[in-house]
Amino acid sequence: MLYSSIDNNKIKDLKKLHNKKYRDKKNMFLVEGKHLVLEAYKTGYLKEMLLEENELLPLDVMTYYMTNNVKNYLSELETPTNVIGICNKKEGVIKGNRIVYLDCIQDPGNLGTIIRSCVAFNIDTLILSRDCVDLYNSKVIRATQGLIFHLNIVISDINEFGPKLKSDGYKIYGTKVTHGKSLKTLEKVSKFVIIMGNEGNGISELSSEFCDEFIYIDMNDKCESLNVGVATSIILYELDK
Amino acid sequence: MLYSSIDNNKIKDLKKLHNKKYRDKKNMFLVEGKHLVLEAYKTGYLKEMLLEENELLPLDVMTYYMTNNVKNYLSELETPTNVIGICNKKEGVIKGNRIVYLDCIQDPGNLGTIIRSCVAFNIDTLILSRDCVDLYNSKVIRATQGLIFHLNIVISDINEFGPKLKSDGYKIYGTKVTHGKSLKTLEKVSKFVIIMGNEGNGISELSSEFCDEFIYIDMNDKCESLNVGVATSIILYELDK
Repeated sequence: MLYSSIDNNKIKDLKKLHNKKYRDKKNMFLVEGKHLVLEAYKTGYLKEMLLEENELLPLDVMTYYMTNNVKNYLSELETPTNVIGICNKKEGVIKGNRIVYLDCIQDPGNLGTIIRSCVAFNIDTLILSRDCVDLYNSKVIRATQGLIFHLNIVISDINEFGPKLKSDGYKIYGTKVTHGKSLKTLEKVSKFVIIMGNEGNGISELSSEFCDEFIYIDMNDKCESLNVGVATSIILYELDK
Repeated sequence: MLYSSIDNNKIKDLKKLHNKKYRDKKNMFLVEGKHLVLEAYKTGYLKEMLLEENELLPLDVMTYYMTNNVKNYLSELETPTNVIGICNKKEGVIKGNRIVYLDCIQDPGNLGTIIRSCVAFNIDTLILSRDCVDLYNSKVIRATQGLIFHLNIVISDINEFGPKLKSDGYKIYGTKVTHGKSLKTLEKVSKFVIIMGNEGNGISELSSEFCDEFIYIDMNDKCESLNVGVATSIILYELDK
């Protein structure tokens, strides 16, 4: 099947997936480019794909073809790639001993970087508060470099999951720029939740109430704070030692 | 003095500073917003400023005023701020024991993040290869959150400074994704150069030739590499302990 018109209903519906509301409604999202499509395929996220006519990508999945104008219409990239994957969302469940909770992270690049570092440093579950930037935003997905498909991710607020984790013996660490315990002197615990806060405002009052301890990263006074993606990655590196 | 027309020659010249060529020619660059202007002022970079008419920012520097249309013309931001600083470039000199060399870093956000982390973790000199993204690119400056004014930065290629640093006893570390020595087991040395490579291609062959040792960051196999800003920051955090 070759799609050649942007007036086609299927193509118009796919275009709507650039919009969070429609992604939520359909439980689907798009990825662009061979690398992301292959990662989605390998991990069972890929439902269908749209390939530019005359291209070859032999995957065991429903494949449609598209003309150049349809590709340009659907792409969010300056230089559109010749394959677009249509993926099913999959929500994880909270599991494992090593958990990160992101409290209202807004920058897609930061969320992507953090997902990459969570995979690198063996985090079992990443929990996103409901007011984080949308996980299926195309900028987030690109910034993860495909690692979004390799991490167990849950969307939930701390008042929903916090009490259970506390009673299950997880130690909950908040992060502040200067208060609490230095990361360097932190004793290792087997079950933890690390809470990272919003780019401008840090962690919320609600999250603070759940914290057993606060940690900070030692640094030169001239620097008020690190980028939140960097701070998260340094903490995860240290806790993975 | 109030500038109200975008046809004014001074305003047209300032607009040209969005362009690297013109910044290089004039040895000047622009910054936007009160925070960056104040940091530029405190550190002696600020030459003049353009303030929106009826705004007040009492600094001991030549101050001009601009109307709203001039502000919108000069700004690179979606929401223009009401002050634009005109700064002199200042080139540093290589000094101190703790040096970072960036070999062809291309992303403005990455360079900004790395500058921030260099200040946080007490780097004495940051050297940028001549093919790095321009230091005075407005996206770089914004990503540094003003810390560009607090770091000694030099622009030079490794064949120019490498031989001297080697003979002065600096240990030169390259970074590779998997080869070399784990960062965790690295013994501390007092004088070092850390080389970080391009986002896609890693460090150049020329840089490799200067390396005494390669280091990598231990991570899960599923993750091919970390974001270069994150990787740099983790290494600097570890070396600052």
